[in-house]
Amino acid sequence: MSEYRGYHGRALQFLKENNISVGDTVTITTDSEHIATIMPRYEHSDDLHIVVKLKSGYNVGLELDKIKKIKFVSSTPAAMVEQSSPQQDPSLPKILLLSTGGTIASRVDYRTGSVTPALSAQELNASVPELSSIANIDAEVLFSEYSENITPEHWIKTACKLDSYADSEYAGIIVAHGTDTMQYTAAFLSFSLAGFPKPIVLVGSQRSSDRPSSDAALNLIAAARFIAQLRTPGVFVAMHNSLSDDDVACHLGTRVRKNHTSRRDAFETVGAPPAFIVTQSDIISNLKSPYFAKNKYTPKITVDTSVVLVKYHPGYEPQNLDYTIERGCKAIIFEGTGLGHVGKSMYEIVRKARQKEIFVGMTSQCIDGRVNMAVYESGRDLLNIGIVPLADMLPEVALVKAMWAAGQGSIKEIMTRKIASEFTE
Amino acid sequence: MSEYRGYHGRALQFLKENNISVGDTVTITTDSEHIATIMPRYEHSDDLHIVVKLKSGYNVGLELDKIKKIKFVSSTPAAMVEQSSPQQDPSLPKILLLSTGGTIASRVDYRTGSVTPALSAQELNASVPELSSIANIDAEVLFSEYSENITPEHWIKTACKLDSYADSEYAGIIVAHGTDTMQYTAAFLSFSLAGFPKPIVLVGSQRSSDRPSSDAALNLIAAARFIAQLRTPGVFVAMHNSLSDDDVACHLGTRVRKNHTSRRDAFETVGAPPAFIVTQSDIISNLKSPYFAKNKYTPKITVDTSVVLVKYHPGYEPQNLDYTIERGCKAIIFEGTGLGHVGKSMYEIVRKARQKEIFVGMTSQCIDGRVNMAVYESGRDLLNIGIVPLADMLPEVALVKAMWAAGQGSIKEIMTRKIASEFTE
Repeated sequence: MSEYRGYHGRALQFLKENNISVGDTVTITTDSEHIATIMPRYEHSDDLHIVVKLKSGYNVGLELDKIKKIKFVSSTPAAMVEQSSPQQDPSLPKILLLSTGGTIASRVDYRTGSVTPALSAQELNASVPELSSIANIDAEVLFSEYSENITPEHWIKTACKLDSYADSEYAGIIVAHGTDTMQYTAAFLSFSLAGFPKPIVLVGSQRSSDRPSSDAALNLIAAARFIAQLRTPGVFVAMHNSLSDDDVACHLGTRVRKNHTSRRDAFETVGAPPAFIVTQSDIISNLKSPYFAKNKYTPKITVDTSVVLVKYHPGYEPQNLDYTIERGCKAIIFEGTGLGHVGKSMYEIVRKARQKEIFVGMTSQCIDGRVNMAVYESGRDLLNIGIVPLADMLPEVALVKAMWAAGQGSIKEIMTRKIASEFTE
Repeated sequence: MSEYRGYHGRALQFLKENNISVGDTVTITTDSEHIATIMPRYEHSDDLHIVVKLKSGYNVGLELDKIKKIKFVSSTPAAMVEQSSPQQDPSLPKILLLSTGGTIASRVDYRTGSVTPALSAQELNASVPELSSIANIDAEVLFSEYSENITPEHWIKTACKLDSYADSEYAGIIVAHGTDTMQYTAAFLSFSLAGFPKPIVLVGSQRSSDRPSSDAALNLIAAARFIAQLRTPGVFVAMHNSLSDDDVACHLGTRVRKNHTSRRDAFETVGAPPAFIVTQSDIISNLKSPYFAKNKYTPKITVDTSVVLVKYHPGYEPQNLDYTIERGCKAIIFEGTGLGHVGKSMYEIVRKARQKEIFVGMTSQCIDGRVNMAVYESGRDLLNIGIVPLADMLPEVALVKAMWAAGQGSIKEIMTRKIASEFTE
């Protein structure tokens, strides 16, 4: 039975004219000849490409205009990928590729068309053959979750696994991760593994690898080059630096934010250039000081989720916070307005929180810039009530830091001490 | 008794050398000669300026290096501002300047040094003499609040006041407003006064007018020029477009966000250039379509604050939302991750909300880009549970729109209908 799931317009016509349907194995000639299996497309795909799975396991989109010849081979999929590990070159450094799921580790089930975060780290490695010229890469699957489903339990599991490699022979570790909550995981690893002696580089992709415009390969290659060449200790996020395929930015794990829902260059270092830019030829450093505030590696892998993030706005009802306080929360992180304010209607509930010795910290919903509560009367009132200004810490990072600190006690002392470049002077 | 509040370093030395202290009246010569009163400085001020109040009531910072002569006149402040209304020119349009408070309408009490939002609209007008060549400006004080203390009751009061001027002789209305929650007020006015036949331009400043770098005058002048020259109906926010004093951006009131705590160009139109740029010589328009979706002016000045904004993050505890649902909230606006996701741990509580017929809408904490819940399994699950994707509506705007819609019933129908350019196709 013919099947054309997701194809329409010119691409559908192309398949029909060649008597080829999804799941068929073909030989296909562009600049070179490949054996490949025709893959289904997503909903809302364009009609200018077909997508094929190569024998390497890598899905690629091919422009119709660049296909010189296509020939039906069989109606069964091409033989399973021969999973020969790439050749090891003893002169190259070793890198561990740890997969936690996400779009970067996703593949389309070629019969159902659904996307599942099920590409093994080994397959991910094999799908980017350029990696073998940069490093000898070992691959390991930790779990397979889209990152909106990542929980603090996953953070702990990831940190413990990374900790177990602190003294290993690896030059650094690449963590494949979904982009939705990558910044939260990066922050947690930064705090819990403060002083980790190797680079930990989180890598994701905004386009799954069956799409012509996937950013997975370039991001992975850049992360590997960054580790192999620089070996800078710290937690970083490596993602496209622009819409072109030229540069990858390597952001500090505590200063990075996903600032666009879909662009490949969605991730930005807030208020500064990225710490490193990996270009086609070089790695440019903008890093002014070491990532970790101290050198000694003393992992503290703790978390307590009794922390709330409250974005203040006109009409915010203080009762909502009252309930949280009654339930025994340990810290409140405000996303205040402007320089770090909340309205007078909040003063009473904040006083109540402080009486219960709940830590109350202030960040700004402006995202960029820094909290300064000494300028206006409102800010000075809030300081007097006992709200702690958190400089230019990002709200999400302050939240994660507070969860981490709440797992250790003495939240205020920890929140105001710099651990991993999470705020600037 | 000599008093030098806030002065230090060179500026303090300058005052002492000239036997002048805060509160004294002096004649001061720069390019021209003025009678002025010496004002105190803020904490953390530089030591390169002194600040004086001119007879016009305008506070200006004067660079020490530009002061040619300073001469003591008396130890009492200069006579109160002579509040002569500027000359009216019948050939110019009329504009109403409505003051609600904020830094733009603040002044320093020259003896105590504290900032109070107490500059009257008339004084604000008089402090920017350039306005009189653009329009005949009437001034009115509605209230005097820093905008972190603005509540939905203030929104209602402002909308009713503006509504009363819908058929007036004014070409448009400038609303002086604090910058902290200006975007929320702008959104509320956009929805409640949909179809308003004149421009409403909110103007603030990031530096109070006693500072040498105050942006108040330029923003006011640009707003007046925009109204006088274009008369484009809609709700706009006029603020510096860059760190220089060259251009002022006129943003759509539903697409603007304060994206920096302190920069004068903190306000940005998200995902697009500002609707208008007011340059020194011209006004450049980027507006593609009318601001309001319909032309007929039918004010609906309603609000119901039974709406919550929930920023999803790993470790978010669904119980917090449960309490809100039990208390009878009418709408939940999620700031989801990425393309509009929340973790699986939230599915049950969202189902419960939907069973109670609570509206549940999805925006993205990425701020830029648009929600697309059809790409991943998570998004499709959430659509099935009944979450309504809100395109590229900003989270804060979606919150205000939901509060406005909740005041009218049929929240879902209103939330998905475009009222005032709050989302794009």
